[in-house]
Amino acid sequence: MSQPTLINHQVRLLARPIGLPRPGDWSRTEEAVGELADGEILIKVLYLSLDPAMRGWMNEGKSYIPPVGLGEVMRAGGAGRVIASKSPLFAPGDMVSALTGVQEYWRGQATDKLAGATRIDPQLAPLPAWLNALGMPGMTGYFGLTEIGRPQPGETVLVSGAAGAVGQTVGQVARHLGCRAVGIAGGREKCDFVVNELGFDACIDYKNASLRDELKKHCPKGVDVYFDNVGGEILDTVLTRINFKARIIICGAISQYNNTTPVKGPSNYLSLLVNRARMEGMVVFDYAPRYPEAVKVIAKWIQEGSFKTREDIVDGLDNFPDALLMLFEGRNFGKLVLRVAAD
Amino acid sequence: MSQPTLINHQVRLLARPIGLPRPGDWSRTEEAVGELADGEILIKVLYLSLDPAMRGWMNEGKSYIPPVGLGEVMRAGGAGRVIASKSPLFAPGDMVSALTGVQEYWRGQATDKLAGATRIDPQLAPLPAWLNALGMPGMTGYFGLTEIGRPQPGETVLVSGAAGAVGQTVGQVARHLGCRAVGIAGGREKCDFVVNELGFDACIDYKNASLRDELKKHCPKGVDVYFDNVGGEILDTVLTRINFKARIIICGAISQYNNTTPVKGPSNYLSLLVNRARMEGMVVFDYAPRYPEAVKVIAKWIQEGSFKTREDIVDGLDNFPDALLMLFEGRNFGKLVLRVAAD
Repeated sequence: MSQPTLINHQVRLLARPIGLPRPGDWSRTEEAVGELADGEILIKVLYLSLDPAMRGWMNEGKSYIPPVGLGEVMRAGGAGRVIASKSPLFAPGDMVSALTGVQEYWRGQATDKLAGATRIDPQLAPLPAWLNALGMPGMTGYFGLTEIGRPQPGETVLVSGAAGAVGQTVGQVARHLGCRAVGIAGGREKCDFVVNELGFDACIDYKNASLRDELKKHCPKGVDVYFDNVGGEILDTVLTRINFKARIIICGAISQYNNTTPVKGPSNYLSLLVNRARMEGMVVFDYAPRYPEAVKVIAKWIQEGSFKTREDIVDGLDNFPDALLMLFEGRNFGKLVLRVAAD
Repeated sequence: MSQPTLINHQVRLLARPIGLPRPGDWSRTEEAVGELADGEILIKVLYLSLDPAMRGWMNEGKSYIPPVGLGEVMRAGGAGRVIASKSPLFAPGDMVSALTGVQEYWRGQATDKLAGATRIDPQLAPLPAWLNALGMPGMTGYFGLTEIGRPQPGETVLVSGAAGAVGQTVGQVARHLGCRAVGIAGGREKCDFVVNELGFDACIDYKNASLRDELKKHCPKGVDVYFDNVGGEILDTVLTRINFKARIIICGAISQYNNTTPVKGPSNYLSLLVNRARMEGMVVFDYAPRYPEAVKVIAKWIQEGSFKTREDIVDGLDNFPDALLMLFEGRNFGKLVLRVAAD
């Protein structure tokens, strides 16, 4: 039953970046995959999810999960195949997602609280979709919008990073809930995709237009729910257009993650007072027990054709450092996924 | 039944201040009190409430109530005696509070939605208390804390401007609810008052100590509810000490009201994300229908001796412009009240 010796290639965090991560912040290592202990499984990683949140995990200091330690394999969500198991819960051949890290193989307790595996069904949707709408970004968009935003039919839901993994979900769920869905994205091509493919009511190209003017045009009744993935100037401008009792979901602040200067706080936060509005943070892990509920809903929509997903797939573990930068430079178009192995 | 001709001295807003209001931003006028129309009452103003919010009312632009127009009598809450009435609701001799404005007499519809009169009972507490714990600041503290903050027994409630009108109420209500109440105030004397007279568990003198260090010391279990009256650096520092699911009530930002530069947004707002915390604005007028409920509770505590109020009373309508500045310079000690007439 024991596996032949497998060599696991890995990307480790060597130094904490200042600003954008540089090549020298990473090291590449290889090591043999050890023997499985009781309860452990071995996953061959096929796809890795590249997420803005990873930048935060590279910083020292208290956050919603511990930082990645220096010298440790970089943390990342992955999807792959179980190729060995000493857990009664999984058998070789099972497809799973887990917090595998940036490496070819993940070995660990199947039920590990943070990293542990979840079975996925490749018949329902292709593997990359399980890192997208059916994975962490999808769960983030779904629960952030429904639980924190609580939009009512007819309300206007605005989301930044609309072409990205979380944004795609937020707008499409908003449409399903009977809301007006308006996106903010960088570039004409992304905006066209958001409107024509994803079915948002409108999308504002913040790189080539005045956000302030476009908000007046596309959110004529103001903004009831703003799902913020970017922070910075965009958050500040949106604050000038929120409605009475508006809800702002603070999901991320990609514009600020690589700052070498202090984070720009929202100068217009007193709009919260004027409008009796609320700004609330969310972390997807809190909703883990309820993921199956959201997966069921979104998978049904995908199968009906009323929910689209788009991934931007980059090949090769070695390309991880550069691929990660695509996120912060807005070079990805759709959920960014790294293909580690073909099969 | 008609009144003899009364001359009403008034303070009007002449120019919109840039930064702190200056003497030239005000004009003094006098005019005869006109005849009462049906439904109107005439109030002789005895006391005026001086509040930080007044600075906001002097600015142009959309807010939670319209700005004071140039040339209009400056808006202010007041308490006084009805001296003439063509309303079935009030009779001469009744004591009332109303948005009387900075003048000696207020004449208007008794039931005016914004400015209208509310009967007060001087037997229950002296008139200035009706502009303090039993008036707008008290209602602000009570409903902001209980409805937005929703503190649970044993939680830590932190409030800035603790010696001020709203802060006094917040901390004392928190104590009554079984919370640890910690204040932030400027100067030893105010802090001693907050702890020794008002019964807070602790008070941090932000002018003479490191707020960061003192928060660690006095909020050893972190901050569950922060009632913010000041904004700026204090809000930013508190954000580093909030707990999981903390609630921040945005009630005001006195540190920013006279800025000639843009408002300082809270750089540490991503602590909301890490802690799944919430920042929410409140405006007391929303709770107007429920004021009697809070007045009843607080008046009972005052009579039992378990709730203290302190006013800082300045004499004379003519001193209004300078008295208002006391608020922004932290020169008042307790709720700032202007005595317009002795009786």
